[in-house]
Amino acid sequence: MAGRLYGVGVGPGDPDLLTLKAIGCLEAADVIAYPVKTPGEKGTALDIVRQRTDLSRKETVELVFGMNSETKARVCDYGNAAAKLSSILDGGKNVAVITLGDVSIYSTYMRLNAEMEARGYETTIIPGVPSFCSGAAEARMPLTIGEEGLAVVSMNGEPKEIRAAMDSFDNIVLMKAGRHMDLAVRLLDDAGLKKAATVISNIGMEGQYVGPIEEGRQYGYFTTVIVKKGRAD
Amino acid sequence: MAGRLYGVGVGPGDPDLLTLKAIGCLEAADVIAYPVKTPGEKGTALDIVRQRTDLSRKETVELVFGMNSETKARVCDYGNAAAKLSSILDGGKNVAVITLGDVSIYSTYMRLNAEMEARGYETTIIPGVPSFCSGAAEARMPLTIGEEGLAVVSMNGEPKEIRAAMDSFDNIVLMKAGRHMDLAVRLLDDAGLKKAATVISNIGMEGQYVGPIEEGRQYGYFTTVIVKKGRAD
Repeated sequence: MAGRLYGVGVGPGDPDLLTLKAIGCLEAADVIAYPVKTPGEKGTALDIVRQRTDLSRKETVELVFGMNSETKARVCDYGNAAAKLSSILDGGKNVAVITLGDVSIYSTYMRLNAEMEARGYETTIIPGVPSFCSGAAEARMPLTIGEEGLAVVSMNGEPKEIRAAMDSFDNIVLMKAGRHMDLAVRLLDDAGLKKAATVISNIGMEGQYVGPIEEGRQYGYFTTVIVKKGRAD
Repeated sequence: MAGRLYGVGVGPGDPDLLTLKAIGCLEAADVIAYPVKTPGEKGTALDIVRQRTDLSRKETVELVFGMNSETKARVCDYGNAAAKLSSILDGGKNVAVITLGDVSIYSTYMRLNAEMEARGYETTIIPGVPSFCSGAAEARMPLTIGEEGLAVVSMNGEPKEIRAAMDSFDNIVLMKAGRHMDLAVRLLDDAGLKKAATVISNIGMEGQYVGPIEEGRQYGYFTTVIVKKGRAD
């Protein structure tokens, strides 16, 4: 009988933001698979897990998802990962694939999950704390209150869509802002929302910063911006 | 010296979705405060906590937030809650206020947190798994993938805003849909998105349902709808 595949959200970085359910699943799994951008790289998600579970007698397997934007290379990465997981599951082992933050928010895993379901495997998803929730907690700031709406957009997306979110929503989260802060600042300035923005960067890591946009400041790779129109003045 | 106030997200319902950090905070707190709609009611958040922490020697305090939509009554609820917490904190005790799901997403607590900070108390927020992330996990469905955006809106909000979210976003989460499913279905129908909707209702409780919108079906109070345009045909 084939093993079961688990997609496990490990939270945004602080190992104490792991849930009991995630820890239970990781301790019970035969194999833990973790995503990396290049072969041999240390996985951030695996680092988190290692701090709260005993991996010493656990089989770990890396899944390579390059940052290559070419569709062909990405399809190839998914195919390789799916083949790797299939062969482990066919051996009757359960596999937990770990993912930063929550599984449903911008994770590579969900495409893989769809592929594995299409191949006939049973899957379970264990949700986690998304980075924007821990960012809001760090800034001691609500994301949405009363009947307000919330828009979550990727700074890799179309500027047109980001502008539309800034126009129609009271609260906007700009994800993946680390390498796009110049664009973020420009769009916020155009919308008159620069003062409404709080930058949350590299929480729990070197270069941690929680505060307003500051001229000339460099932000880390793990940067989220929370924009609240109520704070615009 | 005054105690510290903690706002703690306990996740959407499954006690195993509590984080290690939440449990550590609750075990260390002198007092656990929990929100109720009417005095003497059993608190849903407290029920979750009780299943994974020992409350037998812990002081628990209820905070009444009526569903009264009149501003005056709500201001009064906040004033009462703030006064209650202040008197405990002034006695040097630490208080953890527990809240369903994540603290930054539609929680009553964040307004209280602002009031308590204005009164000079130190506060810490511990994020949790939001209900829409666990809903997506139950449905084994991504909320957002690649560079797509996500809109989270309250069904108590303006239909105009809900329509705008349906127009401009690939993925929409309709929160607090339990008592507004007729309106939700009507708006989805108008937007040609009825088939793109997945209803996630009363997870882990009586009347659990994860599936498409069905004519004539009654849904529970804890209902979220996930709309993915990629699934409309």
